[in-house]
Amino acid sequence: MKIGQGQKLLFIGDSITDCDRAKPEGEGLFGALGTGYVSYVNGLLQAVYPELGIRVVNKGISGNTVRDLKARWQEDVIAQKPDWVSIMIGINDVWRQYDLPFIKEKHVYLDEYEETLRSLVVETKPLVTGIILMTPFYIEGNEHDPMRRTMDQYGKVVKKIAEETDSIFVDTQSAFNEVLKTLYPAALAWDRVHPSVAGHMILARAFLKAIGFDWDKSNR
Amino acid sequence: MKIGQGQKLLFIGDSITDCDRAKPEGEGLFGALGTGYVSYVNGLLQAVYPELGIRVVNKGISGNTVRDLKARWQEDVIAQKPDWVSIMIGINDVWRQYDLPFIKEKHVYLDEYEETLRSLVVETKPLVTGIILMTPFYIEGNEHDPMRRTMDQYGKVVKKIAEETDSIFVDTQSAFNEVLKTLYPAALAWDRVHPSVAGHMILARAFLKAIGFDWDKSNR
Amino acid sequence: MKIGQGQKLLFIGDSITDCDRAKPEGEGLFGALGTGYVSYVNGLLQAVYPELGIRVVNKGISGNTVRDLKARWQEDVIAQKPDWVSIMIGINDVWRQYDLPFIKEKHVYLDEYEETLRSLVVETKPLVTGIILMTPFYIEGNEHDPMRRTMDQYGKVVKKIAEETDSIFVDTQSAFNEVLKTLYPAALAWDRVHPSVAGHMILARAFLKAIGFDWDKSNR
Amino acid sequence: MKIGQGQKLLFIGDSITDCDRAKPEGEGLFGALGTGYVSYVNGLLQAVYPELGIRVVNKGISGNTVRDLKARWQEDVIAQKPDWVSIMIGINDVWRQYDLPFIKEKHVYLDEYEETLRSLVVETKPLVTGIILMTPFYIEGNEHDPMRRTMDQYGKVVKKIAEETDSIFVDTQSAFNEVLKTLYPAALAWDRVHPSVAGHMILARAFLKAIGFDWDKSNR
Amino acid sequence: MKIGQGQKLLFIGDSITDCDRAKPEGEGLFGALGTGYVSYVNGLLQAVYPELGIRVVNKGISGNTVRDLKARWQEDVIAQKPDWVSIMIGINDVWRQYDLPFIKEKHVYLDEYEETLRSLVVETKPLVTGIILMTPFYIEGNEHDPMRRTMDQYGKVVKKIAEETDSIFVDTQSAFNEVLKTLYPAALAWDRVHPSVAGHMILARAFLKAIGFDWDKSNR
Amino acid sequence: MKIGQGQKLLFIGDSITDCDRAKPEGEGLFGALGTGYVSYVNGLLQAVYPELGIRVVNKGISGNTVRDLKARWQEDVIAQKPDWVSIMIGINDVWRQYDLPFIKEKHVYLDEYEETLRSLVVETKPLVTGIILMTPFYIEGNEHDPMRRTMDQYGKVVKKIAEETDSIFVDTQSAFNEVLKTLYPAALAWDRVHPSVAGHMILARAFLKAIGFDWDKSNR
Amino acid sequence: MKIGQGQKLLFIGDSITDCDRAKPEGEGLFGALGTGYVSYVNGLLQAVYPELGIRVVNKGISGNTVRDLKARWQEDVIAQKPDWVSIMIGINDVWRQYDLPFIKEKHVYLDEYEETLRSLVVETKPLVTGIILMTPFYIEGNEHDPMRRTMDQYGKVVKKIAEETDSIFVDTQSAFNEVLKTLYPAALAWDRVHPSVAGHMILARAFLKAIGFDWDKSNR
Amino acid sequence: MKIGQGQKLLFIGDSITDCDRAKPEGEGLFGALGTGYVSYVNGLLQAVYPELGIRVVNKGISGNTVRDLKARWQEDVIAQKPDWVSIMIGINDVWRQYDLPFIKEKHVYLDEYEETLRSLVVETKPLVTGIILMTPFYIEGNEHDPMRRTMDQYGKVVKKIAEETDSIFVDTQSAFNEVLKTLYPAALAWDRVHPSVAGHMILARAFLKAIGFDWDKSNR
Repeated sequence: MKIGQGQKLLFIGDSITDCDRAKPEGEGLFGALGTGYVSYVNGLLQAVYPELGIRVVNKGISGNTVRDLKARWQEDVIAQKPDWVSIMIGINDVWRQYDLPFIKEKHVYLDEYEETLRSLVVETKPLVTGIILMTPFYIEGNEHDPMRRTMDQYGKVVKKIAEETDSIFVDTQSAFNEVLKTLYPAALAWDRVHPSVAGHMILARAFLKAIGFDWDKSNR
Repeated sequence: MKIGQGQKLLFIGDSITDCDRAKPEGEGLFGALGTGYVSYVNGLLQAVYPELGIRVVNKGISGNTVRDLKARWQEDVIAQKPDWVSIMIGINDVWRQYDLPFIKEKHVYLDEYEETLRSLVVETKPLVTGIILMTPFYIEGNEHDPMRRTMDQYGKVVKKIAEETDSIFVDTQSAFNEVLKTLYPAALAWDRVHPSVAGHMILARAFLKAIGFDWDKSNR
Repeated sequence: MKIGQGQKLLFIGDSITDCDRAKPEGEGLFGALGTGYVSYVNGLLQAVYPELGIRVVNKGISGNTVRDLKARWQEDVIAQKPDWVSIMIGINDVWRQYDLPFIKEKHVYLDEYEETLRSLVVETKPLVTGIILMTPFYIEGNEHDPMRRTMDQYGKVVKKIAEETDSIFVDTQSAFNEVLKTLYPAALAWDRVHPSVAGHMILARAFLKAIGFDWDKSNR
Repeated sequence: MKIGQGQKLLFIGDSITDCDRAKPEGEGLFGALGTGYVSYVNGLLQAVYPELGIRVVNKGISGNTVRDLKARWQEDVIAQKPDWVSIMIGINDVWRQYDLPFIKEKHVYLDEYEETLRSLVVETKPLVTGIILMTPFYIEGNEHDPMRRTMDQYGKVVKKIAEETDSIFVDTQSAFNEVLKTLYPAALAWDRVHPSVAGHMILARAFLKAIGFDWDKSNR
Repeated sequence: MKIGQGQKLLFIGDSITDCDRAKPEGEGLFGALGTGYVSYVNGLLQAVYPELGIRVVNKGISGNTVRDLKARWQEDVIAQKPDWVSIMIGINDVWRQYDLPFIKEKHVYLDEYEETLRSLVVETKPLVTGIILMTPFYIEGNEHDPMRRTMDQYGKVVKKIAEETDSIFVDTQSAFNEVLKTLYPAALAWDRVHPSVAGHMILARAFLKAIGFDWDKSNR
Repeated sequence: MKIGQGQKLLFIGDSITDCDRAKPEGEGLFGALGTGYVSYVNGLLQAVYPELGIRVVNKGISGNTVRDLKARWQEDVIAQKPDWVSIMIGINDVWRQYDLPFIKEKHVYLDEYEETLRSLVVETKPLVTGIILMTPFYIEGNEHDPMRRTMDQYGKVVKKIAEETDSIFVDTQSAFNEVLKTLYPAALAWDRVHPSVAGHMILARAFLKAIGFDWDKSNR
Repeated sequence: MKIGQGQKLLFIGDSITDCDRAKPEGEGLFGALGTGYVSYVNGLLQAVYPELGIRVVNKGISGNTVRDLKARWQEDVIAQKPDWVSIMIGINDVWRQYDLPFIKEKHVYLDEYEETLRSLVVETKPLVTGIILMTPFYIEGNEHDPMRRTMDQYGKVVKKIAEETDSIFVDTQSAFNEVLKTLYPAALAWDRVHPSVAGHMILARAFLKAIGFDWDKSNR
Repeated sequence: MKIGQGQKLLFIGDSITDCDRAKPEGEGLFGALGTGYVSYVNGLLQAVYPELGIRVVNKGISGNTVRDLKARWQEDVIAQKPDWVSIMIGINDVWRQYDLPFIKEKHVYLDEYEETLRSLVVETKPLVTGIILMTPFYIEGNEHDPMRRTMDQYGKVVKKIAEETDSIFVDTQSAFNEVLKTLYPAALAWDRVHPSVAGHMILARAFLKAIGFDWDKSNR
């Protein structure tokens, strides 16, 4: 298990991370972590590793692209002094190219995405114990679908940066793909983007596997 | 994994099971299963065993005692034709003895509890593949606390009936006790009864372990 | 223009038709026709053919399948004494097979769909001036997508029944397909089912073309 | 068709244009364009000319007179860098003279109206591909009605300015007059000002005819 | 002053009478009489003739035609045992002919109107001290406007029945006409039907003049 | 009739004047004048003297004392440039002495009241055509009631200032007293302060009599 | 202390008793007893005599007169099997004579009041340990005020019945009178009827004194 | 009775004191003092000692620790110029250590608590007639419960400071302990912290006993 005693684990991202978390703080009781994968990760960490006293903080904001993360990185990440930072970004960077094709100023293309994400990771690495990079995803089983194809490109960039920077890599698209062999996308997300409880469990499990969480650990 | 292909798994209980599920149906999309352990069990089953096509139905109703379950058993359990039935009841049977001590008609004492629960299990057993009996619990680490002591007695009855009827037994109190070695009750539930996300994860995990769920299963 | 002076044109269907229409009546001022293609058809008929005094009635109900239409046909169609009946049904018949794959009692398979729809049309034909049959649709450009493929089968059944019964046929899937050559589905509908204003205009225009509406008519 | 590939078409005006559009932006998904003629124009442009990728922006604000447009022209028009600007203003300039006759500081009389509107058009013309000037209207068939008579004078001013500046001219009053031959005003607008869906379709159609929209265009 | 000591004065009609009165009772404190002319009549009667102890009851219901009055006459008028009955009905009988011209079953034409109103008055006359008949009205100064012309015909019927049955007659149209010499309709009612406070004062004053109310009475 | 052609009549005061008027403006359509005596005065002026085009403005604010009026006099009275100003203030000045007897900083005693009111009137007189001074009141028939006795003293101050400054004087207490001979206070106001519709009609009538309003004027 | 171990004490009355209690039950946690004197009595009994386990039930309903109590006596009192019944009724019986003087069918005059109250007490006496009769009250210090004078007559009837039937008598009017020597009514109740917290404490204290409650009891 | 004629008694604390009081003022009618012990203390003081004219002010704010009190002491205590100050603080200082064990910056440990509280009392003492120090409490009967044990330490600090500074001391924990001999915590507070009405009466009574309140005082 990679997260250590008393460490602070901060999640940042878009609506998938946000899930109606408390603002501005994003930590504490009464649903402060929202209702998505961040809350499930925290719940399972507390349930199985209560003795570690891990702090989970949610700094997701709906609709964000990597451009938005950059603008608030200093305040919402660096100033929080996390030990671990988990980043999942890129869905809106791609989606706007497909649902608002004519409003080009809202698109974040691959070059800007890669450059911005890399600079955030590189800047942050010296200040933390570790970084977890989760790919963006699109809950569409057809690899030739245009938006899925684009999303896969963004996912490859995430993988590349993870390798370059020795970050923990979580391939969320791949995790969804396994389930999409059996289930049609509509069973996991009404819009192929915002997952059901099952979809968030897929995300939480992929994350937890990557950090060495042991489901069968005896906490006696 | 004990639940088989295409089987229907029905949960019944009180507010811990209910968690704002859709009524009357308690099955389907958009939060129909509520926001508690039932929803998490279903999410993890769908995430890890999508190929099994298990149907999860939530028939919890807040405030119920075993007396209430009996009154709606025909309609809410038998008529649903489940393959598996999971029962977690007893918290209100005990709680009313402590928070409304003078209103005795709302108390369900141990004898009535045992007799009623046994008759429901015995009646149902021939109609289903299996029954899961979850103990009621009280998120209080002190075994000598009066309400905890009473709750433990009710839990023992559940265990006895599980053994008599060869049902799957889930000791939720024991699962909470492990975590209470480290965390104070207030960190898991504001009133020692209604759990946080972490508390519901403890319940979901205890349930899933009992039915042979494999977290590390590859679903490729 | 096929709809004549003072005739009553009744639309029936699911949420695409419903669009928050007034209930139970579905006719009159103040948004009684809802905010979808029915309202646009009515608006354009009133704008261009005010002298005809056509009555438009909306009897769509969200979530309906052809099985639901059958159950309310006598009250919501026959008893209204329409001159024209427009039917667009089948999306939920198919969708439930994909978003709730395990709840099979909510699926309406092709045989039942065809049989039910045909019997409704045959029963109604002698009582009205004409029937318009609109295909169900799925705003997905990939013909090999499983749900799109299924939807196309239901659309073929609609076409077959239209030909058998000499009804006016509106191929809504085909109308969407034209636009999907240029636009990605997310630009027309967040869930590939519930269209934007542009999507409802596509439906309204396809309908109006089929009944001989003349956009360039001078109403002087 | 006068609007070209990728061009931005900006509408400005009063409540007839506004129709509960998103503020401040007035562009995008989920009803951002409101529920009136602007939304219908956009819907039909997207439905019939999806390949053109036209951007429609709604900058209407309820209650505005030409005096209000002048105050926000720099920010809401010039700074948006539109290719086309459509202006429909004047209803409140006139209406306040009739519904609040004693509060004279809210009236915008003909001289101020003409001078202000002309200066906005003249200032904007060099910066855009084209300007569309829509007359204000009053849904009253009686030409001798005092408010209708005044509105007609404002409409004539719009026509004059359109001719002077070589703008596209849309005579909305005339479009309504055609329908008022058959329908009584109350069938189109409860207050003779805010149109029903049919009334907004009359406006959209008048606009679209003026810009060379082809309803029968094949978009294959 | 025609209303005597302790008498009950019941008003019945449509939305002009209703004005959000309490239902079902329509009598008592806290706005039970609504916010229109009935409330003003009652307020002025209490202010100037407190010693008479007159009871005012409001039985108006929005949207009613004379056909609706007939249906509830036994319960809402006869069973109330009023001493005086004031009737103002007919606006919706006429309006529906103009705003919903195609839905003919909602129109109440002149013959039915006259026959129904007369039978209600004749039936009631022997049971009460007196009946006040108020004409319907349309706040439109142009006598040649089609809806005004129709409304005037209904008003004439009211006058005829008042004369036949020796009822007190209140010509509300005439009262509005006086003010319309100076004010445009929009200053009195946004839809020419539902009056402003000033419009309801015109109604109240016309009513009070007809029953011999003395504004200058000293109540010392 | 003392108010002349096109003059502006401004009311200022406390909750009796305010009555949920629009803020900040307090003039215009749609209940902008509130639901109390100011609205009734305006309604009757428009109904009987429409040709005068009198503007009524309501600047009452709930809870105000004369101390509050002084603080906003420049902005809410002088800057509005009224022709006539009607002031009714003092109820809260007195009431706080009785319902919050221990919070003395909220009491405005007679000396401060007199001095402040006089200075406001004297300052304003040269700027307007006329001032109307309405006494505060207490709807209690017993002159020996302590709060009534105090209120009467404040009323006498108002009368004195009216005489000194040649203002129009309206004795609202006296107007209520007449009705209180017959009705118990609870029939006019639940708290002896906030009048029913009848109570506001008493105020409106007292005001209108003082300015020479002629109820029987023919406005033909 | 007259209420004994485990006894049930039921309060019935009007809005003073009701105070937004839970309905239909009126017993239990979370404000089920409302926010008035019943809740305070219960709170003080639990605080000082927890060992007695007294059950308090609130069956007050706003607006009730003794006539209403009679109609629901069987269900709301007898069927509850109380040991003690406390009745406070009569305020509305009197108030309606003053605030709705013309609606005589809502008045309950002294004869009916006395006869009805006596029959309820006599009927109930054999079934319970004891009855507490609380007078109605009017928070008005002037004994010559008409409504206060009437209320005093009703209070005398309550005293007479208490003496006849050997019930415990609570003179609430007298309790308020003591405080009214110092405080003006408006400081205790905005309408002289619905008390502030202080007013409800006066009621609770008067009740508790009558049943022998000992504030200084040591509950060690 | 220690509080004298016309003195101002100010309460400050956390949610137990706050109880939804009016903000910012916390004094006056209509529930301004909230619904907890402060309101009950005030109600009983007004009921029994109306002639003293004591002013009670509530400055509690939910969630506050002693650190928060310090930050607002100047504005919320000193600037109010109270004669008496009652302080009950410390519950959140302790609770956060148990319900949010990992967020250490929200914990206020014993040293800081003691130092801060002492400095506030010492600073304030010269400015007031007297100070009342109420211990924080935890409604848990088991003295060995960890949070109860911690709370008892904080209570001892309060006692020590009271003795040092000659303040009036109120041992709320001890008052609850008496009742907890009979009742289980859940009967007094759902979370062992926020009391029921009975719990607030325990607090009010403990406070009143400490200041010499005489329940049996005759206020004649």
